[in-house]
Amino acid sequence: MNILVAGTVAIDDIKTPSSSRKGLMGGSAAYASMASSFFAPTRIVGIVGRDFPEEHVHTLQQREICTEGIERSEGDSFYWSGEYHENMDERTTHDVAVNVLEAYSPKLPVDYQSSEIIVLANMSPKNQLDVLSQCSSPKFVVADTMDIWIQMEGDSLAELLTKIDMLVINESEAKMFTETGNLVQAGRRLLQTGPQYAIIKTGEHGALLFGPEEEFFRVGAYPLASVEDPTGAGDSFLGGLAGFLAESNQQINFSALKQALSPATIMASFTCEAFSVERLAEIGRAEIDERLKAYRRYTQL
Amino acid sequence: MNILVAGTVAIDDIKTPSSSRKGLMGGSAAYASMASSFFAPTRIVGIVGRDFPEEHVHTLQQREICTEGIERSEGDSFYWSGEYHENMDERTTHDVAVNVLEAYSPKLPVDYQSSEIIVLANMSPKNQLDVLSQCSSPKFVVADTMDIWIQMEGDSLAELLTKIDMLVINESEAKMFTETGNLVQAGRRLLQTGPQYAIIKTGEHGALLFGPEEEFFRVGAYPLASVEDPTGAGDSFLGGLAGFLAESNQQINFSALKQALSPATIMASFTCEAFSVERLAEIGRAEIDERLKAYRRYTQL
Repeated sequence: MNILVAGTVAIDDIKTPSSSRKGLMGGSAAYASMASSFFAPTRIVGIVGRDFPEEHVHTLQQREICTEGIERSEGDSFYWSGEYHENMDERTTHDVAVNVLEAYSPKLPVDYQSSEIIVLANMSPKNQLDVLSQCSSPKFVVADTMDIWIQMEGDSLAELLTKIDMLVINESEAKMFTETGNLVQAGRRLLQTGPQYAIIKTGEHGALLFGPEEEFFRVGAYPLASVEDPTGAGDSFLGGLAGFLAESNQQINFSALKQALSPATIMASFTCEAFSVERLAEIGRAEIDERLKAYRRYTQL
Repeated sequence: MNILVAGTVAIDDIKTPSSSRKGLMGGSAAYASMASSFFAPTRIVGIVGRDFPEEHVHTLQQREICTEGIERSEGDSFYWSGEYHENMDERTTHDVAVNVLEAYSPKLPVDYQSSEIIVLANMSPKNQLDVLSQCSSPKFVVADTMDIWIQMEGDSLAELLTKIDMLVINESEAKMFTETGNLVQAGRRLLQTGPQYAIIKTGEHGALLFGPEEEFFRVGAYPLASVEDPTGAGDSFLGGLAGFLAESNQQINFSALKQALSPATIMASFTCEAFSVERLAEIGRAEIDERLKAYRRYTQL
């Protein structure tokens, strides 16, 4: 199956305790599409400004991602600048500029409309609904979201949740959204909002998968002795997950989703090993397969 | 194999967001011995005061734990009072009174001295060393410790670490002790202090196991939709782990430890379902086996 990834494409300035980089490619769709491209044909939809470096588009194209759906607008690109602190699990946002995203109204190229796996990576739920409404025959729709959309676009998010098959969301946001500190309760409440499946990502700890009739599965994250930049790990998780589902080309049920958690967590781990999508841009399928094997050894009896 | 559990036996007053209880049995050895008793013959060594309720000793005996090693002193029992906050993962200690622990010098009954699996549950490293020096033929020694011992008895702890086979420690304490925010680094550094194996417990997320030559394994915690009182979960983890090793009666290597993580996390989960050891006091082997089966389904592909 093929994959449509919709989301943000951004320019990021990132500071970590050991390093600092400017003008990086960021954005949920950039990470998710890079990750999914290893598994299945991927097309991306999003918007960038006139300041967006052509080399970043080239990075996507080198992974054979179709970039026809990236609109180039007159304004400046969506921009984020942030800093990670000592333990790398907390970060401070120094600056966010929505820029071209402000008036963005996604338009799918005609040949994107028949996409099969629809990945609505983190962006405004209104944009996510817009994209979904242009898809003619989705086989599986998975969406991510974040705190600001829960707080500012609750109605659109509620509508979106009734139209997707799976929600993937961070631990802190899941707890905020469902108003409980218990992860199992949070997962079950997410399912009551609409989707058949939900995943709660717990960062360096892994992820929990919830399905109908209290089906449950959990995985630990791939262990990394060194994290360079965790930005985009969650988006890469989403891309790895969608990629596996598309590649396996089978019925997407709880059993398939359980399997998909491994490539999802693996792709997140690669992303953490370098700034931006730089690690994803340099690895090949051999590294992925090798890490999947190690991951199995680390988690399966 | 049989099991010796050494540690604290306490009286706890505990407050949670939904409830409050006084005069409970607490202490690392109480929880660990209750958990291990389901798997192998267990004897406990520790000290209580004249105020310690006989019914608590009876609770241990009902699980066929040998309590000959519980010394009854003239002072008051070790006492802890604490409160859990909304999300149950943070707690405030309101009061700690060391009492009879202050001058405690553990003495093993003669027939304890040949114990095979030695569980040095959380207490002063000096006491842990004392206990270990009286063991004539340990097959496997596992110890737990906590922040105050790292800070206040660093020298004794350093000596202990060279004499044990495995250290089991909380995430926050592992990071503090090894001075890194990265769990994989923390695990590797723990091994450099002496023990062949180390486990870092990550609470509701699970646990990571480290062994020689960068061997690694990780498990997620058993999912609980409701946590009544998490006190003693880590001690019960330790007891479940030791219990499995004793029961399986095989060579204790990395492969055996991987297997032992499942009963360890299961026993921790039972403890969280009620105050004190109350859930451990009411379950039987059937509930344990059923939960182990569910746990396998939740974590193994």
